[in-house]
Amino acid sequence: MNYPGNIKKNNIKKEPVNYANRGMNLESLINESNCYYDEKNKALINKKPTPIGISEAIYTNKGRVIKNGFFKAPSTLDYNGIYKGKYIEFEAKESQNKTSFPLANFHEHQLIYLKRVLEHGGICFVIIKMNNQIFLLKGEDLVSFLNTYERKSIPYSYLEKYGKIIKEGFYPPLDYLKIVDEIYLKGECL
Amino acid sequence: MNYPGNIKKNNIKKEPVNYANRGMNLESLINESNCYYDEKNKALINKKPTPIGISEAIYTNKGRVIKNGFFKAPSTLDYNGIYKGKYIEFEAKESQNKTSFPLANFHEHQLIYLKRVLEHGGICFVIIKMNNQIFLLKGEDLVSFLNTYERKSIPYSYLEKYGKIIKEGFYPPLDYLKIVDEIYLKGECL
Repeated sequence: MNYPGNIKKNNIKKEPVNYANRGMNLESLINESNCYYDEKNKALINKKPTPIGISEAIYTNKGRVIKNGFFKAPSTLDYNGIYKGKYIEFEAKESQNKTSFPLANFHEHQLIYLKRVLEHGGICFVIIKMNNQIFLLKGEDLVSFLNTYERKSIPYSYLEKYGKIIKEGFYPPLDYLKIVDEIYLKGECL
Repeated sequence: MNYPGNIKKNNIKKEPVNYANRGMNLESLINESNCYYDEKNKALINKKPTPIGISEAIYTNKGRVIKNGFFKAPSTLDYNGIYKGKYIEFEAKESQNKTSFPLANFHEHQLIYLKRVLEHGGICFVIIKMNNQIFLLKGEDLVSFLNTYERKSIPYSYLEKYGKIIKEGFYPPLDYLKIVDEIYLKGECL
């Protein structure tokens, strides 16, 4: 049978889709990539455990068990580690928004911390996923945005202009260190 | 009145005792020193939250609450951060032993991780408190001990020979970065 609808669909030009990582959220893409870097001994980068407050814990034959705990707001960025002798710290966020990335995705303390890491000479950035694109935005460009505009969100056009697209791959699923090489360590051989 | 006992006491030569930090364990000394470094913007060094596994969590009007959680063994060292542009990672341990420091105080994964941080160009060490002395032992010296001897503990004499004593003070209570300056960053101006 001939469904006119199908024909119409087939005529639409589609972006090639990477099915390998389908369903993986940004955090999983990064965590798996960090495992890859770890296995290949390319870098030591870890997600910091979420800080937990414990209001009740008991001792059992399996050790200490938490019976009442709560999540604390992080005051630093989620990932840190060492790559080619450099200190690296970054945060990763996804947004369903189409036109701009709401800054409310970051805690205020995190933005202050990001500036401080830069002042101390670290490599510091954010990875933002929106509109099916993943961008690495240098901390310096985020700070410059915050200093220049009093907006509560970063326009998508700003990400397109200043961010660097990180392409998804197979293994590692998100080779963000390739971008770090390009924008921070250009020509450095270590 | 004249108590002979008092006279006797006064004649005994005593080591000056720092009462300021009395009762503070090593972890508290380090955490308070990290707060000091943070306030003075000298370094950004944090204790990593203990990794937690969550087997039950519920949503309440105060947010997500853990009802059953357990502590995981850390595979990295407890503290990391950035100082004068350098990546720093270290572990702190106390022992009541008098003659040697049992290596069982470290998880095996932590010792492997320590070596790897060194390979990646980070500053990595352990802070050990025993016999009322606090030593900073360079990761390199710990690795060299592990490679040379098949012992399950580090003799105190090894700590005395290769470790650097960190003196307790008032504020910060344990200025370990002073020792880091001396042994790692000698003469470096950043």
